[in-house]
Amino acid sequence: MRDVKIIKYQKKYDYTYAYGTFPTIELLETRPSKVVKVLLHTQPSRTEELEKVIQLCKKNRVLFEFNNRHIEKISPKENTKVIGIFEKYASEIPLDAGNHIVLVNPSDMGNTGTIIRTMVGFGINQLALIRPAVDIFDPRVVRTSMGSIFKVKFEYFDDFGDYQKKFPAQQLYPFMLGGRYDLTQVKFETPFGLVFGNEGEGLARSFNKIGKSVYIRHSKEIDSLNVSVAASIALYQATKAI
Amino acid sequence: MRDVKIIKYQKKYDYTYAYGTFPTIELLETRPSKVVKVLLHTQPSRTEELEKVIQLCKKNRVLFEFNNRHIEKISPKENTKVIGIFEKYASEIPLDAGNHIVLVNPSDMGNTGTIIRTMVGFGINQLALIRPAVDIFDPRVVRTSMGSIFKVKFEYFDDFGDYQKKFPAQQLYPFMLGGRYDLTQVKFETPFGLVFGNEGEGLARSFNKIGKSVYIRHSKEIDSLNVSVAASIALYQATKAI
Repeated sequence: MRDVKIIKYQKKYDYTYAYGTFPTIELLETRPSKVVKVLLHTQPSRTEELEKVIQLCKKNRVLFEFNNRHIEKISPKENTKVIGIFEKYASEIPLDAGNHIVLVNPSDMGNTGTIIRTMVGFGINQLALIRPAVDIFDPRVVRTSMGSIFKVKFEYFDDFGDYQKKFPAQQLYPFMLGGRYDLTQVKFETPFGLVFGNEGEGLARSFNKIGKSVYIRHSKEIDSLNVSVAASIALYQATKAI
Repeated sequence: MRDVKIIKYQKKYDYTYAYGTFPTIELLETRPSKVVKVLLHTQPSRTEELEKVIQLCKKNRVLFEFNNRHIEKISPKENTKVIGIFEKYASEIPLDAGNHIVLVNPSDMGNTGTIIRTMVGFGINQLALIRPAVDIFDPRVVRTSMGSIFKVKFEYFDDFGDYQKKFPAQQLYPFMLGGRYDLTQVKFETPFGLVFGNEGEGLARSFNKIGKSVYIRHSKEIDSLNVSVAASIALYQATKAI
């Protein structure tokens, strides 16, 4: 069994952390072979949750350790009671005609995690990320995804053209303020790629010429919708008829 | 002109902060009489944004001051360049048959701010909060709302019954995992109240008997949708036909 230093997460390390009971349970159920160790606090919030974690560790022969000091050292919140330490893993999107979410230059950890949780909720399990993009293994993404991250196949691309080359048959729907079609009127064809831009900038104007660009109608009282809100609404609408 | 101490926000103070250029512009445009002072950084990110802030201050006879030290003292982020200091104000929801969002025991600042931004985006400007509930004037709510908070009428209630007493004609749609109606099938009647529960717990089972309870269909791969995601989808669907 490999040993790891319990230190604050950095992108360059080949392991990372799932903070919290729920994400750790998802980790143990979905990616048991990647778990290095589970840290437990001696004062759990709910005993039955702790027991479930221990049971899953035993079943999967995963090391667990009560160590409040280690938890407090790396946890961002005071009330973290469980941390799953796991090895990062390679992932790619298969050429299997599935539907995709495509995030172009996502920079916010929380939004990315929320989008992952929501896409899994709507049955979309393939995620393309166009660089520069957040580190999907950052503990803040893992936590906000509530462990849904373990259920997606993801792949980074250096630019959007590389993504298009790999998936030439994908029906693309860039979501943007200046989109050509009102979301409520769009009939989504599969396999689709729902494309969203960066939090601050949105998608570049050139995306208007790619596939069918879509706008979500909103009042002039706001500048734009938050990207995770836009993605949620798009996912709801695009999967309603599937 | 009143003077205020530039110190970290606390709920007990009668003034609070709008961090960032965009929220401060919304503050100056929507609630100019409540602004105590605007703090500006000597190195703005965009000169034209700074100029717009100064122009609005002058137009509304609001004091502005270049003071990097004060900004750094109270700002949560390194790159904050503008802070609007403003007095908290009383607010209530009028008896005018408008549509409402009702948040029961919201505890997360970010979710609350995101919901406010989204509701304003979908033309719903009245927000009921059932205690215990977040402090709507906390700078984190103001910031996440992107200043949309200045455009809503809000009111706190000690319990849900008090809300119902004030608005007996409101058509209530509690959103919950065990809801009776599939969102895609619901015809929303106005004036409506879309009701959402706490981040961790959702709505209590008893809400199933209030109005028409609604569920948003999602896969078994996730436990639930994030509350701001659920509210966004609900707002999109409920206002589509209005």
